[in-house]
Amino acid sequence: MRFIIPFISSSISSGHNRVASRLLNSLSANSQRSTVPSFFNCQPPPMAASEESLRKALVEKLSAVEAQGNAVRALKAAKASKPEIDAAIGALNNLKLEKSSIEKQLQAAVSGGDGDGALSREAFRQAAVNTLERRLFYIPSFKIYRGVAGLYDYGPPGCAVKSNVLAFWRQHFVLEENMLEVDCPCVTPEIVLKASGHVEKFTDLMVKDEKTGTCYRADHLLKDFCNEKLQKELTISAEKAAELKHVLATLDDLSPEALGAKIKEYGITAPDTKDPLSDPYPFNLMFQTSIGPSGLSPGYMRPETAQGIFVNFKDLYYYNGNKLPFAAAQIGQAFRNEISPRQGLLRVREFTLAEIEHFVDPEDKSHPKYPEVADLEFLMFPREEQMSGQSAKKICLGDAVSKGIVNNETLGYFIGRVYLFLTRLGIDKDRLQFRQHLANEMAHYAADCWDAEIECSYGWVECVGIADRSAYDLRAHSEKSGVPLVAAEKFSEPREVEKLVIAPVKKELGLAFKGNQKNVVEALEAMNEKEALEMKAALESKGEVEFYVCTLGENVPIKKNMVSISKEKRKEHQRVFTPSVIEPSFGIGRIIYCLFEHCFYTRPSKAGDEQLNVFRFPPLVAPIKCTVFPLVQNQQYEDVAKVISKSLTAAGISHKIDITGTSIGKRYARTDELGVPFAITVDSTADVTIRERDSKLQVRVSVEEAASIVKSVTDGHRTWEDVWEKFPHHTSGSADD
Amino acid sequence: MRFIIPFISSSISSGHNRVASRLLNSLSANSQRSTVPSFFNCQPPPMAASEESLRKALVEKLSAVEAQGNAVRALKAAKASKPEIDAAIGALNNLKLEKSSIEKQLQAAVSGGDGDGALSREAFRQAAVNTLERRLFYIPSFKIYRGVAGLYDYGPPGCAVKSNVLAFWRQHFVLEENMLEVDCPCVTPEIVLKASGHVEKFTDLMVKDEKTGTCYRADHLLKDFCNEKLQKELTISAEKAAELKHVLATLDDLSPEALGAKIKEYGITAPDTKDPLSDPYPFNLMFQTSIGPSGLSPGYMRPETAQGIFVNFKDLYYYNGNKLPFAAAQIGQAFRNEISPRQGLLRVREFTLAEIEHFVDPEDKSHPKYPEVADLEFLMFPREEQMSGQSAKKICLGDAVSKGIVNNETLGYFIGRVYLFLTRLGIDKDRLQFRQHLANEMAHYAADCWDAEIECSYGWVECVGIADRSAYDLRAHSEKSGVPLVAAEKFSEPREVEKLVIAPVKKELGLAFKGNQKNVVEALEAMNEKEALEMKAALESKGEVEFYVCTLGENVPIKKNMVSISKEKRKEHQRVFTPSVIEPSFGIGRIIYCLFEHCFYTRPSKAGDEQLNVFRFPPLVAPIKCTVFPLVQNQQYEDVAKVISKSLTAAGISHKIDITGTSIGKRYARTDELGVPFAITVDSTADVTIRERDSKLQVRVSVEEAASIVKSVTDGHRTWEDVWEKFPHHTSGSADD
Repeated sequence: MRFIIPFISSSISSGHNRVASRLLNSLSANSQRSTVPSFFNCQPPPMAASEESLRKALVEKLSAVEAQGNAVRALKAAKASKPEIDAAIGALNNLKLEKSSIEKQLQAAVSGGDGDGALSREAFRQAAVNTLERRLFYIPSFKIYRGVAGLYDYGPPGCAVKSNVLAFWRQHFVLEENMLEVDCPCVTPEIVLKASGHVEKFTDLMVKDEKTGTCYRADHLLKDFCNEKLQKELTISAEKAAELKHVLATLDDLSPEALGAKIKEYGITAPDTKDPLSDPYPFNLMFQTSIGPSGLSPGYMRPETAQGIFVNFKDLYYYNGNKLPFAAAQIGQAFRNEISPRQGLLRVREFTLAEIEHFVDPEDKSHPKYPEVADLEFLMFPREEQMSGQSAKKICLGDAVSKGIVNNETLGYFIGRVYLFLTRLGIDKDRLQFRQHLANEMAHYAADCWDAEIECSYGWVECVGIADRSAYDLRAHSEKSGVPLVAAEKFSEPREVEKLVIAPVKKELGLAFKGNQKNVVEALEAMNEKEALEMKAALESKGEVEFYVCTLGENVPIKKNMVSISKEKRKEHQRVFTPSVIEPSFGIGRIIYCLFEHCFYTRPSKAGDEQLNVFRFPPLVAPIKCTVFPLVQNQQYEDVAKVISKSLTAAGISHKIDITGTSIGKRYARTDELGVPFAITVDSTADVTIRERDSKLQVRVSVEEAASIVKSVTDGHRTWEDVWEKFPHHTSGSADD
Repeated sequence: MRFIIPFISSSISSGHNRVASRLLNSLSANSQRSTVPSFFNCQPPPMAASEESLRKALVEKLSAVEAQGNAVRALKAAKASKPEIDAAIGALNNLKLEKSSIEKQLQAAVSGGDGDGALSREAFRQAAVNTLERRLFYIPSFKIYRGVAGLYDYGPPGCAVKSNVLAFWRQHFVLEENMLEVDCPCVTPEIVLKASGHVEKFTDLMVKDEKTGTCYRADHLLKDFCNEKLQKELTISAEKAAELKHVLATLDDLSPEALGAKIKEYGITAPDTKDPLSDPYPFNLMFQTSIGPSGLSPGYMRPETAQGIFVNFKDLYYYNGNKLPFAAAQIGQAFRNEISPRQGLLRVREFTLAEIEHFVDPEDKSHPKYPEVADLEFLMFPREEQMSGQSAKKICLGDAVSKGIVNNETLGYFIGRVYLFLTRLGIDKDRLQFRQHLANEMAHYAADCWDAEIECSYGWVECVGIADRSAYDLRAHSEKSGVPLVAAEKFSEPREVEKLVIAPVKKELGLAFKGNQKNVVEALEAMNEKEALEMKAALESKGEVEFYVCTLGENVPIKKNMVSISKEKRKEHQRVFTPSVIEPSFGIGRIIYCLFEHCFYTRPSKAGDEQLNVFRFPPLVAPIKCTVFPLVQNQQYEDVAKVISKSLTAAGISHKIDITGTSIGKRYARTDELGVPFAITVDSTADVTIRERDSKLQVRVSVEEAASIVKSVTDGHRTWEDVWEKFPHHTSGSADD
């Protein structure tokens, strides 16, 4: 029972638009892999045995209750004896209790878990989101104008977290790997997105309220209908339940026609008005605009940053000394004009992507730094396990690569690096898994694809996609632009290679096929090696073969003198090829939202009268690393605070002085809510205390040392445990409350 | 003689759209302040005395040449003696030489400087731009599809420079000043940009080729026409020249009608086709799009980041503990759909802005950190100096503020901080000036405005605008949204304030004015304090006054019993007001382009056979801080290089290993072109050399020290001079060539 929120789109991966879009790796055909047990469950699994038997038991119990009710009434009408009637009523009550119990079990089964779990999940999210919004981690954009769905601002602490995450991304990927970072515009001319397939395929199916014109995502309406039926109408038959589940399972593969037919069949109407709905039709999800004043140059706001890298391949390859492999990277805004955004920060109309395109020789996908990650062990969820109904399990990355579960070393290397990146940010490794795409989720050209999924209160969220996209993107742009985007391997000495040569004898073919000669020639030349060699053998043995010419739609007889097929040896000095690309693509906003949830917890105040909110951000991502508090309002203490502040600034540690007269406990609680890891409290002019956020422990250090200690822990050069061991402990009652 | 490229737009500041746009501070009414001598001159000044006399002298000389030519012909026709003819020819040749000399002087005068200057400027730019493009500092976007005018990518080194500039901006402004950084979307709903004035006013005037439909900026065509006439047709009369210069001077103040009339008068046609042109009409420069699928929610790509801050004022003020002053900041993309972009990286359709909105009590614009910058001295160009034809000069910032040249301390503080920011990046302080806006350049609501202008090969470029915008923006959004965006000053004890109370006596007014009563009441209530007190005095002395009611369009007699005007004392506990905003707004791309030019130079190779290109980036902004070269290809040296590389990575120093077998001189030249400040060359396994880029000096240090020395110089903790003093010098012939 699991619910996956796909990175970019769910329907982009569905049948009608799978072919070309780069984003079709994302998918939400949950139920195909939904037998995996999970705490979270916003969507039902395919009919599980227990649920099916519960549904049956409930229907039976309802009949029994009705029958027993009739029996009681009959006894009363017949003026039966009191003990007899009482016994019957007792039996009826027992049946009703049993019915309630089955109902409760069924409710729990369809809502995944114990029912209370769903509730506490909601409550947890509410508490986290309240804190996030109240402390301005994020703000609905243009709030004073009542906002715009799917657009959010990062307020000061959120913006700081974001810039820390991006700085670490740059350090962890771009600098460590010497990647070529580029920065391309968001405004993109149509031709580029035609080549990439977005103009044609980057769509969701939409229906309109036929009276008001309000638009809805067609699959959402059908999904909501099925889920509601399954969760609220417990007495529907097991057959009906199975049917609804089948619809949910195949939602992403439905054609517009099939989707429309289901909506009609179920009598689904517009949620707000109950008006009838239009047939579903595709809506392109790119924000369209016009470049320049003429109105003749359509453009779009890019739906991803990757295209900017592909179109620059030639220059970047040259910049890299015409050598493979190399990676280019880009951080930037991307846009997606959602039909009706839901799920807060997880489904937005504008978001920051960080994408890497690692270009590699398709014949050598090894990676020199692969051994550095091969021993990592973490939750992986290979295709086979999903198909056979098992769950994700801890696997050693090296094993997954050597067994061929992960297609190649480079893909494996990036999976390992993504794991390290996310866990160092503060993502809980037990709520992080790498799930392999099922065959039907992947683009036809993709060699392999894994998603880093993070579990949060919304379910499993796809936050990073790591795909081996083969040569698809470079080929598409080569074709459209006419500029070859290729690499060459120079041989140290010329190599002899065998090449198949198909030479149609035009004179003979002309005599035999007249006006159709051209079609036959083209068909002969288009044969692959296997076909050609088979024909050669047949011609040599029989002298003539039947040959199907698809442009003519018929077989024609080919004689030995009409074509010469041979293998020739040639000397070649280099091999020219289109590189494969391995693409890790990060949804930064989603990672940040999951990080918020993973870091959030509450603890009772010292007085025990309220719950205090805390974000346990690692220093790396904490929006502010340190606060400085004079214990009481006092010029001397404030001067000391300013001295420390100056040292912190010099050390590049973001911090804040709080000189309000509020109690120190309240001030600690305030900074805990912002996830500030350390607080320096000035309670003398000689030495001060440093408090760690999560343990609430305090040490006493000199004014001079304070900044450098905070810096060393913040930079990861020492741990808080080291500090706690080395410095005298402070246990004054002034701390916290 | 100066040419200013305004930050956002030139015409946005012109008469027809001055009122509301936030961007109207920018202006290119060059000639009003164009008597300033300058090396650069892409546009002529108003008729300078010398130029005027040269034009006259040239016309006279031309007549003299013609007359003398006639004289020679006459002598020949009259078969005069050879010496006589020779003498006349000699005189003619002298006249021709004099004419040439005057022409040359005039050419130089109109093109600003010595003529050779303009040439070397072009050559300099070409050399810099060639290096920038070849080394992928930037790339025309979507190049394989033949690009889109006004869109550029930053390639790897450019992208690194940009991210260094932004990181320093964040350090210098956001962290040092504890600013509240936010991150808002680019997609912006129409209502926000209606409130800001952009929907109505963010326009340029455009003309269309009446046959092909090609669009041009109307002012550009007129400007080009005038410039070309002035520069190429040297023999036009002084009167004509003066007229053309007047047109150039007033270009930005021309109405669409006047601009159209001039285009007609001069017979200006479409540059490419010579077709006739349409009348000028305004074209809105925002990229328009549609939010959501309905087509009913128009949106725009933001033309600036500031609006995102203004609409969040209430939350940010609360976040700051309801205290003023505070500053919010934002870095992000902004968009401008230019009609026909020119001037490379200086006029683009998408760019990165970094904006600060410092909110302050209008009654107290002091700044606590102002003393830290008050002693700075740099080139300033106050309004008075511009009007009186003087030039920019070094002024002490503190003097400018105390004399009231700069309106207030906070504005002065930011001018000083911007100066420090730009010069620390590597902008040459002698090619940086702060120019005050002339009265007609400023919005009516602005209190004062200064531009940081940087001189480059295109002329003076406005790179940062620093404006005191008073309460305009917050008021505009308060009005449109209905949400009061105000601050309050709580009094420590209630204050007694005197308030004017105008109380119309409706009964008397009704009797006197019947149906017009309402108009009269409203007019009475709308009086300002001065008017009311004058009426009160008049009523007391005369008992009746004539009072003009504008909604009636006539005077009405007001008697003493019809209105009571009094001053009442009230106790108030707080003062509620709309804060003023002081806005430093940085065009990051322009700063970076100017930095490229200021850092670029060439020097001869050791052999003297070619010019080598160098960027003298300070370590702070250098795209790569260090390269590591094994002197020769050799496993031992490569291992040492890897050890050093690892230490550099650990120290967070971006670097590159170059193990190609190319000569060390070539490798130095390659990294000089990227502006890499330090190169570590491995020529032994015990110690290595560090070479500084600009001096080409080398010291010898141990393998273990190498990374930390580079880090300390890069971080600014020590200078290269210190290093040079402390460590043994390396003078081997292997360096450079």
